[in-house]
Amino acid sequence: MAEQAFTAMAGPKASGVAPEVGVGMLGYAFMGKAHSNAFKKIPYMMYPPPAIPRLVAIAGRNTAAANEAAKRYGYEKVYADWRDMLADPDVQLFDNGGPNDLHAEPCIAAAQAGKAVFCEKPLARTAEEAKTMLDAVRKAGVKNMVAYNTRFVPAVRLAYELIKSGKLGRIYGMRAVFLQEWLMAHYGTPMIWRTDKKTAGSGALGDLGAHVIDVSRHLVGDIKTVGAITKTFIPERPGPDGKMLKVDVDDAFVSVVEFANGAIGTIEASRFAAGNKNAARFEISGEKGSIRFNMERLNELEVFWVGEHPKETQGWHNVLVTEGYHPWIPNWWPHGHIIGWEHTFVHELTHFLDCIVNDKPVAPYGADFEDGYRCACICDAILESAQKRAQVDVKY
Amino acid sequence: MAEQAFTAMAGPKASGVAPEVGVGMLGYAFMGKAHSNAFKKIPYMMYPPPAIPRLVAIAGRNTAAANEAAKRYGYEKVYADWRDMLADPDVQLFDNGGPNDLHAEPCIAAAQAGKAVFCEKPLARTAEEAKTMLDAVRKAGVKNMVAYNTRFVPAVRLAYELIKSGKLGRIYGMRAVFLQEWLMAHYGTPMIWRTDKKTAGSGALGDLGAHVIDVSRHLVGDIKTVGAITKTFIPERPGPDGKMLKVDVDDAFVSVVEFANGAIGTIEASRFAAGNKNAARFEISGEKGSIRFNMERLNELEVFWVGEHPKETQGWHNVLVTEGYHPWIPNWWPHGHIIGWEHTFVHELTHFLDCIVNDKPVAPYGADFEDGYRCACICDAILESAQKRAQVDVKY
Amino acid sequence: MAEQAFTAMAGPKASGVAPEVGVGMLGYAFMGKAHSNAFKKIPYMMYPPPAIPRLVAIAGRNTAAANEAAKRYGYEKVYADWRDMLADPDVQLFDNGGPNDLHAEPCIAAAQAGKAVFCEKPLARTAEEAKTMLDAVRKAGVKNMVAYNTRFVPAVRLAYELIKSGKLGRIYGMRAVFLQEWLMAHYGTPMIWRTDKKTAGSGALGDLGAHVIDVSRHLVGDIKTVGAITKTFIPERPGPDGKMLKVDVDDAFVSVVEFANGAIGTIEASRFAAGNKNAARFEISGEKGSIRFNMERLNELEVFWVGEHPKETQGWHNVLVTEGYHPWIPNWWPHGHIIGWEHTFVHELTHFLDCIVNDKPVAPYGADFEDGYRCACICDAILESAQKRAQVDVKY
Amino acid sequence: MAEQAFTAMAGPKASGVAPEVGVGMLGYAFMGKAHSNAFKKIPYMMYPPPAIPRLVAIAGRNTAAANEAAKRYGYEKVYADWRDMLADPDVQLFDNGGPNDLHAEPCIAAAQAGKAVFCEKPLARTAEEAKTMLDAVRKAGVKNMVAYNTRFVPAVRLAYELIKSGKLGRIYGMRAVFLQEWLMAHYGTPMIWRTDKKTAGSGALGDLGAHVIDVSRHLVGDIKTVGAITKTFIPERPGPDGKMLKVDVDDAFVSVVEFANGAIGTIEASRFAAGNKNAARFEISGEKGSIRFNMERLNELEVFWVGEHPKETQGWHNVLVTEGYHPWIPNWWPHGHIIGWEHTFVHELTHFLDCIVNDKPVAPYGADFEDGYRCACICDAILESAQKRAQVDVKY
Repeated sequence: MAEQAFTAMAGPKASGVAPEVGVGMLGYAFMGKAHSNAFKKIPYMMYPPPAIPRLVAIAGRNTAAANEAAKRYGYEKVYADWRDMLADPDVQLFDNGGPNDLHAEPCIAAAQAGKAVFCEKPLARTAEEAKTMLDAVRKAGVKNMVAYNTRFVPAVRLAYELIKSGKLGRIYGMRAVFLQEWLMAHYGTPMIWRTDKKTAGSGALGDLGAHVIDVSRHLVGDIKTVGAITKTFIPERPGPDGKMLKVDVDDAFVSVVEFANGAIGTIEASRFAAGNKNAARFEISGEKGSIRFNMERLNELEVFWVGEHPKETQGWHNVLVTEGYHPWIPNWWPHGHIIGWEHTFVHELTHFLDCIVNDKPVAPYGADFEDGYRCACICDAILESAQKRAQVDVKY
Repeated sequence: MAEQAFTAMAGPKASGVAPEVGVGMLGYAFMGKAHSNAFKKIPYMMYPPPAIPRLVAIAGRNTAAANEAAKRYGYEKVYADWRDMLADPDVQLFDNGGPNDLHAEPCIAAAQAGKAVFCEKPLARTAEEAKTMLDAVRKAGVKNMVAYNTRFVPAVRLAYELIKSGKLGRIYGMRAVFLQEWLMAHYGTPMIWRTDKKTAGSGALGDLGAHVIDVSRHLVGDIKTVGAITKTFIPERPGPDGKMLKVDVDDAFVSVVEFANGAIGTIEASRFAAGNKNAARFEISGEKGSIRFNMERLNELEVFWVGEHPKETQGWHNVLVTEGYHPWIPNWWPHGHIIGWEHTFVHELTHFLDCIVNDKPVAPYGADFEDGYRCACICDAILESAQKRAQVDVKY
Repeated sequence: MAEQAFTAMAGPKASGVAPEVGVGMLGYAFMGKAHSNAFKKIPYMMYPPPAIPRLVAIAGRNTAAANEAAKRYGYEKVYADWRDMLADPDVQLFDNGGPNDLHAEPCIAAAQAGKAVFCEKPLARTAEEAKTMLDAVRKAGVKNMVAYNTRFVPAVRLAYELIKSGKLGRIYGMRAVFLQEWLMAHYGTPMIWRTDKKTAGSGALGDLGAHVIDVSRHLVGDIKTVGAITKTFIPERPGPDGKMLKVDVDDAFVSVVEFANGAIGTIEASRFAAGNKNAARFEISGEKGSIRFNMERLNELEVFWVGEHPKETQGWHNVLVTEGYHPWIPNWWPHGHIIGWEHTFVHELTHFLDCIVNDKPVAPYGADFEDGYRCACICDAILESAQKRAQVDVKY
Repeated sequence: MAEQAFTAMAGPKASGVAPEVGVGMLGYAFMGKAHSNAFKKIPYMMYPPPAIPRLVAIAGRNTAAANEAAKRYGYEKVYADWRDMLADPDVQLFDNGGPNDLHAEPCIAAAQAGKAVFCEKPLARTAEEAKTMLDAVRKAGVKNMVAYNTRFVPAVRLAYELIKSGKLGRIYGMRAVFLQEWLMAHYGTPMIWRTDKKTAGSGALGDLGAHVIDVSRHLVGDIKTVGAITKTFIPERPGPDGKMLKVDVDDAFVSVVEFANGAIGTIEASRFAAGNKNAARFEISGEKGSIRFNMERLNELEVFWVGEHPKETQGWHNVLVTEGYHPWIPNWWPHGHIIGWEHTFVHELTHFLDCIVNDKPVAPYGADFEDGYRCACICDAILESAQKRAQVDVKY
């Protein structure tokens, strides 16, 4: 790989005065915070930025909370109803950081209003719902992106470049897991929207699994067949009034997959994997090399080269992906000064702004709604496979 | 766990004069070497030993090689035909280190001749074949054991004790892989008995998968259902005369499993996982704790305790399983002086000798032919599942 | 340790309207960027903040660069001469991010002007120079702090709490290194201010060594005696005109130290340690436990407890210091979502703002000028020891 | 490095009938066990062996224990007095596994009796004593070796080859520690010969430090200058009768060193480093590469190449030193099957037997008495330096 390979993605180029892009944000919790932080850092850290995000408005049903968020992050206006925000001509980019049941309707409305749409993952609760969103952005011809931020970890982008350039040769296998532990009994987590099928669509599958499914598609290619088992370990959780409510989503799933290119693998997610805080891990085995990654050490990529010489010192390379020749790193700090999880959103939204103002395609570097839809198809196939106890060919 | 917990297994006790047990060995290659080394070390390292193995005879079709092995390891006699060796009254323990297609007939004959039988894994090429062996040892009432040596890694025995004593609580998930790389193109491996279904039964499945299937059963319990995909990446390999022969076994498989106790997991094996030399790895997630193991660092066990205090320093423990309170370690070296892969056979054969002379049951610490048969049933179900593209309930 | 132990430092408390503190920044390179980023993040990430930093002015001799930095980070004014900036009544906090030879004069002037002073490390080129700065801030009675940001890594603060609360018992030993590689020949680094004694004071010692000396003092206590060797591996580097100039600072040093409390240790730094990008590592061995840290994995702390039960699973804990009960983490992200190197400055400057507006002492959590002076005394003693080839008792 | 580089050391070659070498062993404890095990494994594992060790006799003052050891390991005769054993003409190789105060006299007598002498480390309690031993073997012209077994770890031999072949270029720095914990209070260790200067010569220095000093000399070269601090943390320990006795050796030492070739480094050892069971670790930083090693993971070597391409995947290689092209591995097991600490003695004594029967030099692969003496000179200089509080040039 040429050492200049990442220049293009290492950061946007100077181009006179950067245009402003007005942002309308839906949601002010975990993702609202992560996205807002990204918008605020882009102008001076991804310097010079492709565009200057202007924090036009934030919308939320809880007016007090929305007002507080506006004050905290610097949004100019607050809307109680996202519909009103979408009518605001200053809003050019609609950022949907709401729960899964609030993805489709606002995103479709935003597309119809001609806004660029950035939506949290998973795109929708089902493939069918995702399809309506994909159709809407296609029809409206607006830029669209799903927030699969793992693609924007420098180490993951490095992995992408290694694979796409053929450095790993034919891919034989992929093992991907996303393990967390916060639904285990000792956390005392009550019934929340994430454990309710109506709101979330699915459990560990759509929340965690979707991340590693997207990254599997990104790195290895489309998935042809799945075979899965799902499990709910704690069947009831207390609702707001203390009454026990039925958990109707998966706490964990395991699946075997076959990719279109013939590689096979396993994809799993669990919220019951004690000791794993945020362990999105994968290992890809190829003909000429292998790679390993763990989100809990996101500044590192492990790489093994089959053809390495001398053989005596062949081994897994622990690559600290923090150097000036690594993706996006020139925008940050010198040698070995690591970045954090939040920085993935800075990279991701810079890319989206760049696509908007310079009319570039979101894919293949970012996940667009087509990717979001395909990921939803795989999730649906996993649920169907688990229910039928048989392998299912994914229908796109 | 009481610190004395491992005293019982830490080594045999003094008991006057140890009886001799005459060993008849079939095979002189990799496993013949590993088993012979174990027999030679037992008398002075597992001291005082439960029995003194007497190296009575070795059998092999290649007379020159068998003679060389006899001289090298100190076997008293050489037999060209294992049938003659089984007729030797000095042989009390028949150790079958031959290829998979040479497991059933000699083991059954040995049982019929009243010998204790120790057989390399996998027990047989199919469950049906394994059943004939199980029936034979049952009928003959002889001690029997399958060489699933992973059970005799101190760290794995520690894991067993932790789980069986309830320390991990309910088990939610298990992820197990056994990854190697020596069938990849750059190794230039020709057609060998391990890639030939007639001799081996299956490929990565029976060779590597069987190890982690056995250890999954050992640690988590019996497997109820499997769903699998198998793959052969290099379809032909050169035979002895250079002519290309069809590889009719799997180079890799992936499977989802459900255990009888409700835990779910994935089990995989591959001979195409570049960078993995001998990576039998597993992770078990339980209600009260989790454990992780990798055969390439077999002196270590990673443990996470859910209830650990203070919380601020809760984390995965890297346990160096080399201390006097760890299984078998008092027989070896002081603090932190690690042991090697070969030592698992020393522990395993000491256990078998102990079972023979003191009439103890081989299971649950060791794998007996019942375990070998059940493992074969799971392997068969995996192949059936891959062929049917559906989940299969294991039939025992 | 009580699980609430870190509440107090987990983030500032709401207190009505946060006062503004006007910031005047000297320097716009590496440290200017890191400090400016911190000031910009404090208002919304350390929420609610103890004070709102107002970016009043930036000063720099290169007017074009200073103007560019002002535009980039949002400083209201630009001063070509820092003296003019110190005369600006809107500036309450003087942040000195300049090279080492520009520390003393501006800091002393700032103190005399009644500004709070925040100075990059090392405080000065020599202990004597540092003493003039310490005298100035004492005389002026202004808040003062040296940017030893390692203290503000959550894992390091956790280590501090463990040690200070007696959890590790008596400390026996400390091994600390700070290893980098960017002065090695293959980097082609020319003569820069950091390799020039007149500007930098010393080489790896003041740049890297000072960090681990400060953290050693912070965690273990004051250093009584040192014995050192220094080395310059590449004696000449090209100047701006290509002419070779003599490197008169150390490329690396090694030292033995004895602490006032009787612990012994080694402290080293090198810019010639291939493979180490930013490896500030330390290991502290105590009577009741030990800890290990590496800046390249700053979200982790390794901890070993002597008294841990059960003994069978005793081992080094790999603590992911990313949970809600860890220092500062409640201000950031949920479980296992790691932070980056830059976040240490956010914590550090929040602390300094808190000290300014709420009249709290900078020490012991932060390093004040007294700490900066003592660190300089140790650096001087190391140079003296290397020159005399004898142990030197540090004179404070 | 040519991939055949290790062929020569991978194992002895066939050479008709191997001659017998009669072994006379002094000592039957830890080292007696380790050496006896090695002698017993050499004939069939280092196959074909350069010589067959014949276990002629064992000597020990405790007749019952010596008899038991003879029976356990298969020594033909037992001598209550080592002098009688040295008079036995069947003894050709004298193996001294006794405590440090029993090294000089028997070794010198053995040399005078024309026996090859293998002595446990450290060679002697002082350099002066070591010199008498060196003079004796030189005068007698007998083969001599000190049991610095770390040199015979495959990963360490690989490191040696890398450095000696120039692959690492000029060496800039070495950091070496040997950390254990078994003298800490919670172990309750009483006064033993290892804590008694009269018997042991020194404490952590001669026991642990000598190992890493030898390996430093082996890998980097001779040491010119040292500067050290020593410490005794627990000043008194109970004697056999419970009475408290003064510990007059070091519990830990730290030192800075300068090598003859200009490299600098630190060498430390401690028996008070909680969490470290047997942590002989070193890191060597060179112009073209760096290496890291830890005895607790002795099958691994970490290697970093400065000139590695592509740069994007440059990183520390985790080399599993278990492959057929690694030192001694062809004698053991296939890919990735790790060996243990005890195997170092198998390699070491095979080398010594090879030197004896084929008249080869022990050095530079093994440590001869000259190396043992030089190591003792460095130990003496460390003690002198600590006492004088000044750097000391090592006198050889």
